[in-house]
Amino acid sequence: MQTISIIGGTGSLGSGLAWRFAQAGNKVIIGSRDAERAAETATDINRKLGKDLAQGMDNDAAAAAGDIIVLTIKFNHQKSTLAQLHDAVQGKIVVDTTVPLVPPKVARVQLPPEGSAGLITQQLLGENVQVVSAFQNIAADSLPGDAPITCDVLVTGDSKDAREAVIQIARASGMRAWHAGPLANSVAAEAMTSLLIHLNKQFPGAHTGIKITGIPD
Amino acid sequence: MQTISIIGGTGSLGSGLAWRFAQAGNKVIIGSRDAERAAETATDINRKLGKDLAQGMDNDAAAAAGDIIVLTIKFNHQKSTLAQLHDAVQGKIVVDTTVPLVPPKVARVQLPPEGSAGLITQQLLGENVQVVSAFQNIAADSLPGDAPITCDVLVTGDSKDAREAVIQIARASGMRAWHAGPLANSVAAEAMTSLLIHLNKQFPGAHTGIKITGIPD
Repeated sequence: MQTISIIGGTGSLGSGLAWRFAQAGNKVIIGSRDAERAAETATDINRKLGKDLAQGMDNDAAAAAGDIIVLTIKFNHQKSTLAQLHDAVQGKIVVDTTVPLVPPKVARVQLPPEGSAGLITQQLLGENVQVVSAFQNIAADSLPGDAPITCDVLVTGDSKDAREAVIQIARASGMRAWHAGPLANSVAAEAMTSLLIHLNKQFPGAHTGIKITGIPD
Repeated sequence: MQTISIIGGTGSLGSGLAWRFAQAGNKVIIGSRDAERAAETATDINRKLGKDLAQGMDNDAAAAAGDIIVLTIKFNHQKSTLAQLHDAVQGKIVVDTTVPLVPPKVARVQLPPEGSAGLITQQLLGENVQVVSAFQNIAADSLPGDAPITCDVLVTGDSKDAREAVIQIARASGMRAWHAGPLANSVAAEAMTSLLIHLNKQFPGAHTGIKITGIPD
């Protein structure tokens, strides 16, 4: 059974993904700067699940223990976290969910000079890591509970096999997920999040997402 | 009645939008480098419509005659066309539909150093022109005929009133259209087109698009 480690796993996106991945039968490790909080989040998931599939650790231990490492951290912590985890994730699949939001104007697209957060991750971790970019558009609020997820997942990355592994995890977790091309295409999903934030501000209570249309049945 | 001029209006996106805009009751001018081809496209629209709402002109005359100017030209013709039309469009709303595709890798996002095609248009036309970016994600093949359009339109621009004018035209033409923020956000819609091209290649016969989900009824 594959083990998925979520770095920053006590946050709303991280804990929400961990819950959905565990529901799909994956072993998940909650990573956090605070191992105690990580353990609490894991206990909470196991209680809701009625099974012991989640475990809490500090980020370093989580990165070392996982087969697939999912980064759910804020953009302003991205580079320091990658430097810290660099050695532990070599040879693994790293899933980057980072959206390059620059407060206070988070509803305005402000891409980094490197192109995208996904490209930064690949650059900093090096070519021995298969970076896959995904899950930027899903509203974290839609992940707890069991409601169907109406937002599609655009999966980009330069390794088709690594993309496929992430697509399989997403689909098993009740999401519609697509091969969306090379890691350079992560720009589109990352930029889209600011548009969704803009829409959420217009419609109180909205948790907007996107769906791909026009695929023949 | 407002007059909408389509620059590059004999192409598949331009003629398709002209047809839908005329169906909604707008007067449309087909602009082309070749006035004769423009007239043929206009005649074709009028015949299908059973009404004389379309007219053909060369691009210069079309830009001068329209209230709202829609650019449906290829990225590699963008700068030369903007230089040519610069004076004629001052004080008007210019709708940029340009997608910065760089052949042969059109399924790979390759944004221009300026950020987006929409931002290039604003830069080159100057602040006396209200640039609105829209219609990048609609498959041109879905526009002829009367079939419902399943792809949403993300409308960005720094003037809310200008965005609203374009949203009203799109909605009257049977499309779901959204205020998607400042012109900087055009990056998201432009980049998304390469992902949709990537998806179209995976699913023979697909004309993919996107739909915003999660807006409360």
